[in-house]
Amino acid sequence: MALKLSYFQTRGLGEPIRLLLADKQVPFEDHRLSRDEWPEYKPKMIFGQVPCLISGDEELVQSAAILRHLGRLHGLNGSNETETKFIDMFYEGIRDLHNKYVAMIYQNYENGKEPYIKNTLPEELARLEKLFHTYKNGEQYVAGSAESYADYVLFEELDIHLILSPTCLDGTPALKKFHERFAERPNIKSYLNKRAAINPAVNGNGKQ
Amino acid sequence: MALKLSYFQTRGLGEPIRLLLADKQVPFEDHRLSRDEWPEYKPKMIFGQVPCLISGDEELVQSAAILRHLGRLHGLNGSNETETKFIDMFYEGIRDLHNKYVAMIYQNYENGKEPYIKNTLPEELARLEKLFHTYKNGEQYVAGSAESYADYVLFEELDIHLILSPTCLDGTPALKKFHERFAERPNIKSYLNKRAAINPAVNGNGKQ
Repeated sequence: MALKLSYFQTRGLGEPIRLLLADKQVPFEDHRLSRDEWPEYKPKMIFGQVPCLISGDEELVQSAAILRHLGRLHGLNGSNETETKFIDMFYEGIRDLHNKYVAMIYQNYENGKEPYIKNTLPEELARLEKLFHTYKNGEQYVAGSAESYADYVLFEELDIHLILSPTCLDGTPALKKFHERFAERPNIKSYLNKRAAINPAVNGNGKQ
Repeated sequence: MALKLSYFQTRGLGEPIRLLLADKQVPFEDHRLSRDEWPEYKPKMIFGQVPCLISGDEELVQSAAILRHLGRLHGLNGSNETETKFIDMFYEGIRDLHNKYVAMIYQNYENGKEPYIKNTLPEELARLEKLFHTYKNGEQYVAGSAESYADYVLFEELDIHLILSPTCLDGTPALKKFHERFAERPNIKSYLNKRAAINPAVNGNGKQ
Protein backbone atom coordinates (compact mmCIF):
# COMPACT_ATOMS: atom_id res chain seq x y z
CA MET A 1 0.00 0.00 0.00
CA ALA A 2 1.34 3.45 -0.92
CA LEU A 3 2.70 5.33 2.07
CA LYS A 4 2.68 9.08 2.51
CA LEU A 5 4.54 10.92 5.25
CA SER A 6 3.49 14.51 5.87
CA TYR A 7 5.83 16.72 7.84
CA PHE A 8 7.50 20.12 7.64
CA GLN A 9 10.47 20.77 5.37
CA THR A 10 12.76 20.62 8.41
CA ARG A 11 14.35 17.51 9.93
CA GLY A 12 12.68 17.78 13.36
CA LEU A 13 10.47 14.87 14.45
CA GLY A 14 10.09 13.64 10.88
CA GLU A 15 13.74 12.82 10.23
CA PRO A 16 14.09 9.55 12.20
CA ILE A 17 11.03 8.26 10.32
CA ARG A 18 12.52 9.30 6.96
CA LEU A 19 15.81 7.61 7.91
CA LEU A 20 14.03 4.38 8.81
CA LEU A 21 12.03 4.32 5.58
CA ALA A 22 15.10 5.17 3.49
CA ASP A 23 17.24 2.51 5.18
CA LYS A 24 14.59 -0.18 4.79
CA GLN A 25 13.94 0.98 1.23
CA VAL A 26 10.24 1.40 1.84
CA PRO A 27 8.81 3.55 -0.95
CA PHE A 28 6.92 6.55 0.39
CA GLU A 29 5.78 9.98 -0.65
CA ASP A 30 7.91 12.46 1.28
CA HIS A 31 5.31 15.20 1.57
CA ARG A 32 6.96 18.33 2.96
CA LEU A 33 4.67 21.10 4.09
CA SER A 34 5.75 24.69 3.77
CA ARG A 35 4.97 27.06 6.64
CA ASP A 36 2.45 28.73 4.32
CA GLU A 37 0.55 25.47 3.84
CA TRP A 38 0.47 24.61 7.55
CA PRO A 39 -2.57 26.70 8.59
CA GLU A 40 -4.63 24.77 6.03
CA TYR A 41 -3.37 21.35 7.21
CA LYS A 42 -3.30 21.87 10.97
CA PRO A 43 -7.07 21.61 11.56
CA LYS A 44 -7.18 18.37 9.56
CA MET A 45 -4.62 16.66 11.78
CA ILE A 46 -5.95 14.47 14.63
CA PHE A 47 -4.01 16.36 17.31
CA GLY A 48 -3.27 19.43 15.19
CA GLN A 49 0.28 18.16 14.66
CA VAL A 50 2.57 16.43 12.20
CA PRO A 51 4.24 14.03 11.37
CA CYS A 52 1.34 12.10 9.89
CA LEU A 53 1.72 8.76 8.16
CA ILE A 54 -1.04 7.84 5.73
CA SER A 55 -1.44 4.28 4.55
CA GLY A 56 -4.55 3.66 2.47
CA ASP A 57 -7.41 5.11 4.51
CA GLU A 58 -5.54 4.84 7.82
CA GLU A 59 -3.98 7.95 9.29
CA LEU A 60 -1.40 7.73 12.04
CA VAL A 61 -0.04 10.71 13.95
CA GLN A 62 2.37 11.05 16.89
CA SER A 63 5.99 10.48 15.87
CA ALA A 64 6.54 7.84 18.56
CA ALA A 65 3.49 5.82 17.50
CA ILE A 66 4.60 6.04 13.86
CA LEU A 67 8.10 4.79 14.72
CA ARG A 68 6.83 1.88 16.78
CA HIS A 69 4.30 0.97 14.08
CA LEU A 70 7.02 0.92 11.41
CA GLY A 71 9.26 -0.94 13.85
CA ARG A 72 6.69 -3.74 14.18
CA LEU A 73 6.11 -3.83 10.41
CA HIS A 74 9.76 -3.99 9.38
CA GLY A 75 11.33 -6.27 11.97
CA LEU A 76 12.77 -3.38 13.98
CA ASN A 77 11.09 -4.05 17.31
CA GLY A 78 13.23 -6.80 18.88
CA SER A 79 12.81 -10.54 18.63
CA ASN A 80 11.37 -11.12 22.10
CA GLU A 81 9.73 -9.15 24.92
CA THR A 82 13.03 -8.51 26.71
CA GLU A 83 14.41 -6.81 23.60
CA THR A 84 11.16 -5.02 22.76
CA LYS A 85 10.84 -3.42 26.18
CA PHE A 86 14.52 -2.46 26.22
CA ILE A 87 14.24 -0.77 22.81
CA ASP A 88 11.13 1.07 24.03
CA MET A 89 12.87 2.25 27.22
CA PHE A 90 15.95 3.35 25.30
CA TYR A 91 13.82 5.26 22.81
CA GLU A 92 11.98 7.03 25.64
CA GLY A 93 15.32 8.01 27.13
CA ILE A 94 16.42 9.57 23.83
CA ARG A 95 13.09 11.36 23.74
CA ASP A 96 13.72 12.92 27.17
CA LEU A 97 17.00 14.29 25.84
CA HIS A 98 15.26 15.55 22.70
CA ASN A 99 12.63 17.36 24.75
CA LYS A 100 15.38 19.18 26.65
CA TYR A 101 17.10 20.02 23.37
CA VAL A 102 13.88 21.35 21.85
CA ALA A 103 13.11 23.46 24.95
CA MET A 104 16.58 25.03 24.69
CA ILE A 105 16.37 25.55 20.89
CA TYR A 106 12.89 27.13 20.92
CA GLN A 107 12.71 28.86 24.29
CA ASN A 108 16.18 29.63 25.55
CA TYR A 109 18.74 29.44 22.75
CA GLU A 110 20.74 32.59 23.47
CA ASN A 111 21.17 32.09 27.21
CA GLY A 112 20.62 28.35 27.40
CA LYS A 113 22.91 26.97 24.71
CA GLU A 114 26.19 27.07 26.63
CA PRO A 115 24.85 25.64 29.92
CA TYR A 116 23.04 22.96 27.89
CA ILE A 117 26.27 21.92 26.15
CA LYS A 118 28.31 22.12 29.34
CA ASN A 119 25.96 20.51 31.86
CA THR A 120 22.77 18.93 30.51
CA LEU A 121 24.18 17.20 27.45
CA PRO A 122 27.17 15.36 29.01
CA GLU A 123 24.95 14.01 31.79
CA GLU A 124 22.30 12.78 29.38
CA LEU A 125 24.81 11.30 26.93
CA ALA A 126 26.63 9.49 29.75
CA ARG A 127 23.34 7.77 30.68
CA LEU A 128 22.71 6.67 27.10
CA GLU A 129 26.34 5.53 26.75
CA LYS A 130 26.00 3.37 29.85
CA LEU A 131 22.74 1.89 28.63
CA PHE A 132 24.15 1.26 25.16
CA HIS A 133 26.91 -0.80 26.80
CA THR A 134 24.58 -2.62 29.16
CA TYR A 135 22.72 -4.67 26.66
CA LYS A 136 24.71 -7.58 25.23
CA ASN A 137 27.90 -5.72 26.15
CA GLY A 138 27.40 -2.96 23.63
CA GLU A 139 27.16 -4.62 20.27
CA GLN A 140 26.43 -2.72 17.09
CA TYR A 141 22.92 -1.51 17.81
CA VAL A 142 20.71 -0.36 20.67
CA ALA A 143 19.27 -3.84 21.05
CA GLY A 144 22.49 -5.71 20.37
CA SER A 145 23.13 -7.44 17.06
CA ALA A 146 19.92 -6.46 15.25
CA GLU A 147 18.65 -3.03 14.22
CA SER A 148 15.62 -1.46 15.82
CA TYR A 149 13.62 1.71 15.30
CA ALA A 150 15.51 3.24 18.25
CA ASP A 151 18.71 3.19 16.19
CA TYR A 152 17.33 5.71 13.69
CA VAL A 153 16.24 7.97 16.53
CA LEU A 154 19.58 7.65 18.30
CA PHE A 155 21.50 8.35 15.09
CA GLU A 156 19.51 11.50 14.34
CA GLU A 157 19.74 12.66 17.97
CA LEU A 158 23.52 12.30 17.99
CA ASP A 159 23.74 13.87 14.55
CA ILE A 160 21.90 17.05 15.52
CA HIS A 161 23.90 17.30 18.73
CA LEU A 162 27.14 17.10 16.74
CA ILE A 163 25.89 20.16 14.83
CA LEU A 164 25.26 21.92 18.15
CA SER A 165 28.57 20.82 19.64
CA PRO A 166 31.04 18.98 17.34
CA THR A 167 33.00 17.51 20.25
CA CYS A 168 30.01 16.36 22.29
CA LEU A 169 30.63 12.63 21.70
CA ASP A 170 34.28 12.66 22.72
CA GLY A 171 33.38 11.42 26.20
CA THR A 172 31.04 8.67 24.99
CA PRO A 173 33.06 6.35 22.72
CA ALA A 174 30.35 3.73 22.18
CA LEU A 175 27.84 6.34 21.01
CA LYS A 176 30.51 7.97 18.83
CA LYS A 177 31.35 4.65 17.16
CA PHE A 178 27.67 3.89 16.71
CA HIS A 179 27.15 7.22 14.96
CA GLU A 180 30.12 6.71 12.63
CA ARG A 181 29.13 3.14 11.80
CA PHE A 182 25.48 3.98 11.21
CA ALA A 183 26.34 6.83 8.83
CA GLU A 184 28.19 4.27 6.70
CA ARG A 185 25.23 1.97 6.16
CA PRO A 186 24.83 2.07 2.37
CA ASN A 187 21.19 3.18 2.32
CA ILE A 188 21.74 5.76 5.06
CA LYS A 189 24.84 7.09 3.32
CA SER A 190 22.93 7.44 0.09
CA TYR A 191 20.05 9.20 1.87
CA LEU A 192 22.43 11.58 3.65
CA ASN A 193 24.13 12.43 0.38
CA LYS A 194 20.82 13.25 -1.25
CA ARG A 195 19.74 15.24 1.81
CA ALA A 196 22.95 17.28 1.76
CA ALA A 197 21.91 18.67 -1.62
CA ILE A 198 18.68 20.03 -0.11
CA ASN A 199 20.22 20.84 3.29
CA PRO A 200 16.96 21.13 5.24
CA ALA A 201 16.89 23.13 8.46
CA VAL A 202 17.26 21.06 11.62
CA ASN A 203 14.59 22.99 13.50
CA GLY A 204 11.64 25.18 12.57
CA ASN A 205 13.13 28.39 13.95
CA GLY A 206 16.41 28.05 12.08
CA LYS A 207 18.46 27.56 15.28
CA GLN A 208 20.75 24.55 15.48
CA MET B 1 7.78 -13.79 38.75
CA ALA B 2 7.36 -11.30 41.60
CA LEU B 3 6.84 -7.76 40.39
CA LYS B 4 7.92 -4.60 42.18
CA LEU B 5 6.85 -1.11 41.19
CA SER B 6 8.90 1.74 42.66
CA TYR B 7 7.42 5.21 42.53
CA PHE B 8 6.73 8.15 44.79
CA GLN B 9 3.86 8.19 47.29
CA THR B 10 1.89 10.41 44.93
CA ARG B 11 -0.36 9.35 42.06
CA GLY B 12 1.62 11.05 39.27
CA LEU B 13 3.06 8.85 36.52
CA GLY B 14 2.77 5.74 38.68
CA GLU B 15 -0.99 5.72 39.05
CA PRO B 16 -2.05 4.42 35.59
CA ILE B 17 0.37 1.52 36.10
CA ARG B 18 -1.07 0.80 39.57
CA LEU B 19 -4.60 0.93 38.12
CA LEU B 20 -3.70 -1.53 35.37
CA LEU B 21 -2.08 -3.98 37.78
CA ALA B 22 -4.99 -3.70 40.24
CA ASP B 23 -7.61 -4.20 37.54
CA LYS B 24 -5.83 -7.22 36.06
CA GLN B 25 -5.21 -8.55 39.58
CA VAL B 26 -1.49 -8.87 38.98
CA PRO B 27 0.23 -9.21 42.37
CA PHE B 28 2.97 -6.63 42.84
CA GLU B 29 4.90 -4.91 45.56
CA ASP B 30 3.70 -1.30 45.61
CA HIS B 31 6.96 0.27 46.71
CA ARG B 32 6.35 3.94 47.53
CA LEU B 33 9.39 6.11 48.00
CA SER B 34 9.30 9.00 50.43
CA ARG B 35 10.95 12.27 49.38
CA ASP B 36 13.62 11.53 51.99
CA GLU B 37 14.51 8.23 50.36
CA TRP B 38 14.67 9.65 46.84
CA PRO B 39 18.25 11.05 46.92
CA GLU B 40 19.47 7.54 47.72
CA TYR B 41 17.45 5.93 44.90
CA LYS B 42 17.84 8.51 42.15
CA PRO B 43 21.45 7.62 41.18
CA LYS B 44 20.50 3.94 40.95
CA MET B 45 17.77 4.58 38.37
CA ILE B 46 18.71 4.18 34.68
CA PHE B 47 17.61 7.71 33.76
CA GLY B 48 17.52 9.06 37.32
CA GLN B 49 13.72 8.74 37.32
CA VAL B 50 10.86 6.59 38.54
CA PRO B 51 8.54 4.73 37.97
CA CYS B 52 10.67 1.61 37.81
CA LEU B 53 9.24 -1.87 37.33
CA ILE B 54 11.42 -4.73 38.52
CA SER B 55 10.73 -8.27 37.41
CA GLY B 56 13.37 -10.79 38.47
CA ASP B 57 16.68 -9.26 37.39
CA GLU B 58 15.11 -7.05 34.71
CA GLU B 59 14.59 -3.39 35.43
CA LEU B 60 12.30 -1.27 33.29
CA VAL B 61 11.96 2.49 33.59
CA GLN B 62 10.01 5.10 31.61
CA SER B 63 6.29 5.05 32.43
CA ALA B 64 5.29 4.71 28.77
CA ALA B 65 7.57 1.72 28.20
CA ILE B 66 6.24 0.09 31.39
CA LEU B 67 2.63 0.58 30.28
CA ARG B 68 3.22 -0.83 26.81
CA HIS B 69 5.17 -3.77 28.27
CA LEU B 70 2.31 -4.60 30.64
CA GLY B 71 -0.12 -4.03 27.78
CA ARG B 72 1.60 -6.70 25.68
CA LEU B 73 1.80 -9.09 28.64
CA HIS B 74 -1.82 -8.81 29.71
CA GLY B 75 -3.71 -8.67 26.42
CA LEU B 76 -4.13 -4.88 26.58
CA ASN B 77 -2.40 -3.95 23.35
CA GLY B 78 -5.05 -4.58 20.67
CA SER B 79 -5.71 -7.72 18.68
CA ASN B 80 -4.17 -6.56 15.40
CA GLU B 81 -1.81 -3.86 14.10
CA THR B 82 -4.65 -1.45 13.30
CA GLU B 83 -5.78 -1.55 16.94
CA THR B 84 -2.26 -1.54 18.37
CA LYS B 85 -1.23 1.58 16.48
CA PHE B 86 -4.49 3.33 17.32
CA ILE B 87 -4.06 2.62 21.04
CA ASP B 88 -0.47 3.87 20.83
CA MET B 89 -1.54 7.09 19.07
CA PHE B 90 -4.37 7.68 21.54
CA TYR B 91 -2.04 7.14 24.47
CA GLU B 92 0.47 9.63 23.03
CA GLY B 93 -2.34 12.15 22.67
CA ILE B 94 -3.25 11.78 26.35
CA ARG B 95 0.42 12.19 27.16
CA ASP B 96 0.53 15.53 25.33
CA LEU B 97 -2.36 16.72 27.48
CA HIS B 98 -0.64 15.41 30.60
CA ASN B 99 2.56 17.29 29.75
CA LYS B 100 0.59 20.53 29.49
CA TYR B 101 -1.14 19.74 32.80
CA VAL B 102 2.18 19.05 34.52
CA ALA B 103 3.76 22.24 33.15
CA MET B 104 0.83 24.24 34.56
CA ILE B 105 0.85 22.41 37.94
CA TYR B 106 4.60 22.69 38.52
CA GLN B 107 5.54 25.93 36.76
CA ASN B 108 2.54 28.19 36.48
CA TYR B 109 -0.22 27.12 38.87
CA GLU B 110 -1.23 30.49 40.28
CA ASN B 111 -1.43 32.38 36.99
CA GLY B 112 -1.90 29.47 34.63
CA LYS B 113 -4.71 27.46 36.23
CA GLU B 114 -7.65 29.54 34.99
CA PRO B 115 -6.45 29.96 31.38
CA TYR B 116 -5.63 26.23 31.34
CA ILE B 117 -9.16 25.31 32.44
CA LYS B 118 -10.78 27.84 30.13
CA ASN B 119 -8.72 27.41 26.95
CA THR B 120 -6.22 24.56 26.86
CA LEU B 121 -8.31 21.85 28.48
CA PRO B 122 -11.53 22.14 26.41
CA GLU B 123 -9.55 22.09 23.18
CA GLU B 124 -7.53 19.02 24.20
CA LEU B 125 -10.56 17.15 25.56
CA ALA B 126 -12.53 17.88 22.38
CA ARG B 127 -9.78 16.20 20.35
CA LEU B 128 -9.79 13.12 22.58
CA GLU B 129 -13.61 13.01 22.53
CA LYS B 130 -13.59 13.05 18.74
CA LEU B 131 -10.97 10.31 18.59
CA PHE B 132 -12.81 8.23 21.16
CA HIS B 133 -15.86 8.33 18.89
CA THR B 134 -13.91 7.65 15.72
CA TYR B 135 -12.90 4.12 16.43
CA LYS B 136 -15.75 1.62 16.04
CA ASN B 137 -18.23 4.44 16.67
CA GLY B 138 -17.20 4.98 20.27
CA GLU B 139 -17.69 1.69 22.01
CA GLN B 140 -16.76 1.12 25.63
CA TYR B 141 -13.01 1.50 25.44
CA VAL B 142 -10.34 3.45 23.59
CA ALA B 143 -9.86 0.59 21.13
CA GLY B 144 -13.52 -0.37 20.88
CA SER B 145 -14.89 -3.43 22.65
CA ALA B 146 -11.72 -4.61 24.40
CA GLU B 147 -9.66 -2.89 27.09
CA SER B 148 -6.18 -1.57 26.43
CA TYR B 149 -3.45 0.04 28.51
CA ALA B 150 -4.59 3.42 27.16
CA ASP B 151 -7.87 3.07 29.10
CA TYR B 152 -6.08 3.21 32.45
CA VAL B 153 -4.17 6.28 31.36
CA LEU B 154 -7.30 7.95 30.02
CA PHE B 155 -9.23 7.17 33.20
CA GLU B 156 -6.55 8.64 35.45
CA GLU B 157 -6.12 11.68 33.18
CA LEU B 158 -9.84 12.43 33.29
CA ASP B 159 -9.95 11.73 37.01
CA ILE B 160 -7.22 14.24 37.89
CA HIS B 161 -8.79 16.82 35.61
CA LEU B 162 -12.12 16.39 37.38
CA ILE B 163 -10.28 17.33 40.58
CA LEU B 164 -8.90 20.43 38.85
CA SER B 165 -12.24 21.33 37.29
CA PRO B 166 -15.30 19.25 38.33
CA THR B 167 -17.33 20.31 35.28
CA CYS B 168 -14.58 19.80 32.70
CA LEU B 169 -16.23 16.75 31.10
CA ASP B 170 -19.64 18.35 30.61
CA GLY B 171 -18.81 19.14 26.99
CA THR B 172 -17.41 15.71 26.17
CA PRO B 173 -20.17 13.15 26.85
CA ALA B 174 -18.33 10.07 25.53
CA LEU B 175 -15.33 10.74 27.78
CA LYS B 176 -17.64 11.46 30.72
CA LYS B 177 -19.48 8.18 30.24
CA PHE B 178 -16.21 6.32 29.85
CA HIS B 179 -14.96 7.75 33.14
CA GLU B 180 -18.16 6.83 35.00
CA ARG B 181 -18.25 3.33 33.53
CA PHE B 182 -14.58 2.64 34.18
CA ALA B 183 -14.84 3.70 37.84
CA GLU B 184 -17.50 1.00 38.26
CA ARG B 185 -15.33 -1.90 37.11
CA PRO B 186 -15.25 -4.10 40.22
CA ASN B 187 -11.46 -4.25 40.59
CA ILE B 188 -11.06 -0.54 39.88
CA LYS B 189 -13.82 0.32 42.34
CA SER B 190 -12.19 -1.79 45.00
CA TYR B 191 -8.78 -0.18 44.32
CA LEU B 192 -10.26 3.33 44.44
CA ASN B 193 -11.94 2.57 47.74
CA LYS B 194 -8.69 1.36 49.25
CA ARG B 195 -6.87 4.36 47.82
CA ALA B 196 -9.39 6.79 49.31
CA ALA B 197 -8.31 5.62 52.76
CA ILE B 198 -4.71 6.69 52.04
CA ASN B 199 -5.68 9.67 49.89
CA PRO B 200 -2.30 10.12 48.17
CA ALA B 201 -1.40 13.53 46.68
CA VAL B 202 -2.05 13.84 42.97
CA ASN B 203 1.21 15.68 42.31
CA GLY B 204 4.55 16.02 44.07
CA ASN B 205 4.12 19.70 44.92
CA GLY B 206 0.70 19.24 46.53
CA LYS B 207 -1.12 21.27 43.84
CA GLN B 208 -4.09 19.69 42.14
